[in-house]
Amino acid sequence: MTYCCGILVRDGLVMVADTRTNAGLDNISTFRKLHLFEQPREKVMMLAAAGSLSVTQTVISYLREGVPDPQTGEHKTLLDAHSMLEAAIMVGNAIRLVHQTFLNAPQAAQVDFGVTFLFGGQLADLRLRLFMIYNEGNFIEATEDTPYLQVGEHKYGKPILDRAVSFDTDPYDALKLGLVSMDSTLRSNLSVGLPLDVGLLRRDTVALEVNQRIDESDEYFSNLRESWSVALREAHLKIPRPPYGVKDGQV
Amino acid sequence: MTYCCGILVRDGLVMVADTRTNAGLDNISTFRKLHLFEQPREKVMMLAAAGSLSVTQTVISYLREGVPDPQTGEHKTLLDAHSMLEAAIMVGNAIRLVHQTFLNAPQAAQVDFGVTFLFGGQLADLRLRLFMIYNEGNFIEATEDTPYLQVGEHKYGKPILDRAVSFDTDPYDALKLGLVSMDSTLRSNLSVGLPLDVGLLRRDTVALEVNQRIDESDEYFSNLRESWSVALREAHLKIPRPPYGVKDGQV
Repeated sequence: MTYCCGILVRDGLVMVADTRTNAGLDNISTFRKLHLFEQPREKVMMLAAAGSLSVTQTVISYLREGVPDPQTGEHKTLLDAHSMLEAAIMVGNAIRLVHQTFLNAPQAAQVDFGVTFLFGGQLADLRLRLFMIYNEGNFIEATEDTPYLQVGEHKYGKPILDRAVSFDTDPYDALKLGLVSMDSTLRSNLSVGLPLDVGLLRRDTVALEVNQRIDESDEYFSNLRESWSVALREAHLKIPRPPYGVKDGQV
Repeated sequence: MTYCCGILVRDGLVMVADTRTNAGLDNISTFRKLHLFEQPREKVMMLAAAGSLSVTQTVISYLREGVPDPQTGEHKTLLDAHSMLEAAIMVGNAIRLVHQTFLNAPQAAQVDFGVTFLFGGQLADLRLRLFMIYNEGNFIEATEDTPYLQVGEHKYGKPILDRAVSFDTDPYDALKLGLVSMDSTLRSNLSVGLPLDVGLLRRDTVALEVNQRIDESDEYFSNLRESWSVALREAHLKIPRPPYGVKDGQV
């Protein structure tokens, strides 16, 4: 399984991804899921992958080595794109290409080749954008109303994002909230695991400000996990106990 | 959809259930899912239902009117049971009986008749117990290590229970935490909805101490939701911002 979230705020973009993959319950590995495509001061794009590792790795390979354009046949890498929109369409083309190849196998119907990507970034002089790209290659985009998107095991980490993230959130607070959201997921689902990869791109800088791997030894993240647990326990203690009793006529 | 949780602590048992049912996304109704079977001072049992409403309602009807024993053919109601174990087996028998009837239909394969129940309570002079009864009629039981069980849309509301509930939690704190867990689910999944039904059974009293319906106008629950949101926002503000930057050699 996987959990990745992307948060697009007024001053920047944050992406957080775990690294655990599993083939069944008893075959667990570590693979980077947050991939960076960068020409500093020109183009910065981050792609976070969830789903079939064979498909997501091959999609990433195509995007680095060249995807054939369905109309012209011309091969282009993700860094050849002239806009985030063109790049998002290219990711979709790469997904379809890999599916066409893999789904040709006689046994393919019995395998789940599903994938989903978060794709965010900015090209110089263009807008900072964040997309979620579906298995079919179509996509949606984060807006001021809904400034975060998630892929993979998203439910455990959604309540804190729902409550605390807005478009006006500071990028480092957004990163912190992404880590709190990840912490809830790590605790409740063993198939999401450390280390984490995080990226922070400040709007209009077109260069990553944070690009960090967080593992078990990371002091800040350990403190955040502990502080958050303590805070949650204290928060509920401040709420008075329920005043309810037995009402006549209740069934 | 549905969310119900049951929490078994040293001093009692709490059960919380929503009431929203949906046939598709555009057909929403309200049905009680927390059902009480009570002979005061003799037997108190609570059954919370998730899944196909046609199956859960018919299971409840059988349990009130009599389920045939698979061996003897004798009809017994849930209140005829002499132990929680016998009662849990009877719930399983009722599920199998309803499935045998409904799955006979030519179109049955296309319908999801799946159900899950939480079943808790105590008979005089016996132990207070909490079970989760699966679609096949088998069941598991809450223990001191894992004092809570959930059915339905369980993921949004799990992080707070994971962190804050233990066997030593006071029953009214457990009820409060069940309501916080429900609040997270209500916010994130529209198919879980108010009003709620809650029950609290103090150990060895064999009489419900709380049996309450909570709707939009409930002042305590409104305050709890608001207080919890404020507390979460404040909790993350107390955690310092991440110290991360760009490390050389990161991909």
